[in-house]
Amino acid sequence: MNSHHASFLADFASMSSNGATAGGGVDRQAATVADGQNRNWFRGLVEGHGFTVHYDQVGNQYSMLELSPGAPWIAVGSHLDSQPLGGRFDGAYGVLAGAHAAKRVQEMLAAAGGESNAKFNIVVINWFNEEGCRFKPSMMGSSVYTGKLSAAQVLKTTDPDGVSVREALESIGTIGDFDLPVSAYVEIHIEQGRSLEDRGLTIGLVESTWGANKYEFVVHGDQAHTGATIIADRQDALLGASALVVAAREIALEHSTEEHMVITSCGEFNVFPNSPVVVASRVNLLVDVRSTDPDVLAAADAALHARVAKIEKMANVKIVRGAEHVWGAKAYDQAGLKLAAEAAESLGLSHGVVRTLAGHDSTNMKDLVPTIMLFIPSVEGISHNERELTSDDDMVAGVDLLSEVLLRVVRGEFVA
Amino acid sequence: MNSHHASFLADFASMSSNGATAGGGVDRQAATVADGQNRNWFRGLVEGHGFTVHYDQVGNQYSMLELSPGAPWIAVGSHLDSQPLGGRFDGAYGVLAGAHAAKRVQEMLAAAGGESNAKFNIVVINWFNEEGCRFKPSMMGSSVYTGKLSAAQVLKTTDPDGVSVREALESIGTIGDFDLPVSAYVEIHIEQGRSLEDRGLTIGLVESTWGANKYEFVVHGDQAHTGATIIADRQDALLGASALVVAAREIALEHSTEEHMVITSCGEFNVFPNSPVVVASRVNLLVDVRSTDPDVLAAADAALHARVAKIEKMANVKIVRGAEHVWGAKAYDQAGLKLAAEAAESLGLSHGVVRTLAGHDSTNMKDLVPTIMLFIPSVEGISHNERELTSDDDMVAGVDLLSEVLLRVVRGEFVA
Repeated sequence: MNSHHASFLADFASMSSNGATAGGGVDRQAATVADGQNRNWFRGLVEGHGFTVHYDQVGNQYSMLELSPGAPWIAVGSHLDSQPLGGRFDGAYGVLAGAHAAKRVQEMLAAAGGESNAKFNIVVINWFNEEGCRFKPSMMGSSVYTGKLSAAQVLKTTDPDGVSVREALESIGTIGDFDLPVSAYVEIHIEQGRSLEDRGLTIGLVESTWGANKYEFVVHGDQAHTGATIIADRQDALLGASALVVAAREIALEHSTEEHMVITSCGEFNVFPNSPVVVASRVNLLVDVRSTDPDVLAAADAALHARVAKIEKMANVKIVRGAEHVWGAKAYDQAGLKLAAEAAESLGLSHGVVRTLAGHDSTNMKDLVPTIMLFIPSVEGISHNERELTSDDDMVAGVDLLSEVLLRVVRGEFVA
Repeated sequence: MNSHHASFLADFASMSSNGATAGGGVDRQAATVADGQNRNWFRGLVEGHGFTVHYDQVGNQYSMLELSPGAPWIAVGSHLDSQPLGGRFDGAYGVLAGAHAAKRVQEMLAAAGGESNAKFNIVVINWFNEEGCRFKPSMMGSSVYTGKLSAAQVLKTTDPDGVSVREALESIGTIGDFDLPVSAYVEIHIEQGRSLEDRGLTIGLVESTWGANKYEFVVHGDQAHTGATIIADRQDALLGASALVVAAREIALEHSTEEHMVITSCGEFNVFPNSPVVVASRVNLLVDVRSTDPDVLAAADAALHARVAKIEKMANVKIVRGAEHVWGAKAYDQAGLKLAAEAAESLGLSHGVVRTLAGHDSTNMKDLVPTIMLFIPSVEGISHNERELTSDDDMVAGVDLLSEVLLRVVRGEFVA
């Protein structure tokens, strides 16, 4: 193992102790004390390596490494926040890899005859609240950066305890007024699926995002006694919501084709008043439908809404669709895909084209600037779980590739 | 309206302001501050009328009216605790009616030539935690009194915040070491169903309880990313639990007959970790199956368990049955039914025989001593809801009947 690899793995182990859970994962939900600790830890690390650190109005953290004074900036990044009882790789790997790769680029340029070869400077961005568990929606920081959400709206968003984003960011002291345009964006992330592992590949070159329609549904019933109320008189919100969860799975199975998979999920489900002997008056739940193909997605989505109408009758409830968060299946930059493939070839790393099912900050950034998205494998595809795992070999291979890609981008081989 | 009726309605209105909610109901969950306030309010009321008040080791409140010194005691009662956002009639009506009826019996005896006609004294019991929402199981206080639960086990039972029954009772100061055997039990309660209203009756004479099998199920899945995890890899605890809720309803519809209804419910449903982008690792839920007939109940129960096995396969989860709380369909005392019918006749109150779907403290008491259970109508059968309603006329008719029944019991016409 070379010294770059050893240094990266040591820093990764150190970072993983911030917000560590007993089960080997981390709990660093956005703007919690643990997230604040980790942001400060990261700031200390990169300042020690000559970066300067700033925060913007929604807490995105910019660690800037100047290679060519006055030149425009390219960004590399991901997110340091985690799910509750999340894994230690998701997001955090990419931010730390970005910092190490930026430093390696600086060294490579110096070794090759000076930093004046750089046409760009590098900023490592730790996007605020990619996970969206404490504050909804997910990908919050990059959504503001790319103009998809307003900062004002985000700052007043509250968590379940009524704490606003502004209050939470102020409490951990990571909010400012910095602002920086960038010319391109590069991100590396764990796959969180198992296609790379199944195909025996080290590197995934992300070709496109899946389309996703994410909905908040509110099922309205009427509170009643579970013992004394006969079936005919019930308006059972829990029954309606449960039927919707079951219907979502059935739709995924019915609409998936050989070529285009449909994935449906329900990740949050809150029952009111949730007492043992009370028929529920209301359930709030999130349902999402994803597919690689827009037509397949549209058909599955229509089927979901048709089922909603049937469930309303069956359970004698009213189902209201609230907030939605929709993104289309979109391609990443083709030139970036080629550049990354050539960089992987030059390092002898096995690689293949993949699609990302999950949303990432690059999902937003690719709509603003030319963007390259890279994956490394997840063991058994396990993610959002304390048992999330990527091997040391795959992690350092990813940093090597990210360094090589960033070097090419900084030299002007991706954007001018 | 006579003065007895006016006095009862005034006291009922006063009591309903304790723990009142904006929606016209009450929130007086067991051993909360609001429950404590209401217990103290009731104590003050009855002490003003010559009762003496004591608490036993699990917070059951005994308001004693001595009619014949040294004579044995008969009990009348119900419960003052409520559901969260519950109605103001459920339980509370019966306790207050008991106190007013006891006082009326004392007056009637005096008018008829002195209290020495009494063969029994009367204790009004406010049973602790009939509702079972804050502390499980329901009917807690009467279960300890009748030996179905141990006091030690009950006292260490905790609410979702980790507060034990002992701590909660001590904090509201309604715990003691009183102990009193009783010879018979009488309870009046709102029906919480609509059979009396549908039949145009004022009084229900409860013939039997429904049998009920109440189960706690834990559905174990595996935490995963909702976006990145393909369907084949999921072990979705929320899907499994939802399918169980849907199956429970289907079983009720399939197993109900003309003669014997089956009712299934799920009243509590907790998802972990319940994050928007995480496939649930675990769901805890309560499912209950009730029927008037033991054989129909057994068949429905077997069908439920067969469905559990199928759901485990479908959702790729493990479903474990935890705590259970089972009671059989049992008859109330036939002589008591006859006594109550005659009392209703003597007052010119329309009446009919009913069964109780819900559990009541009398469900426990009838297994220990001869017990009479009376119902008055609930408008539209709505209960466990802030809109729960019983008319003033029905309430005071119920107090009249309860007084007449108690008079007969005290005179030795029910038990010797």
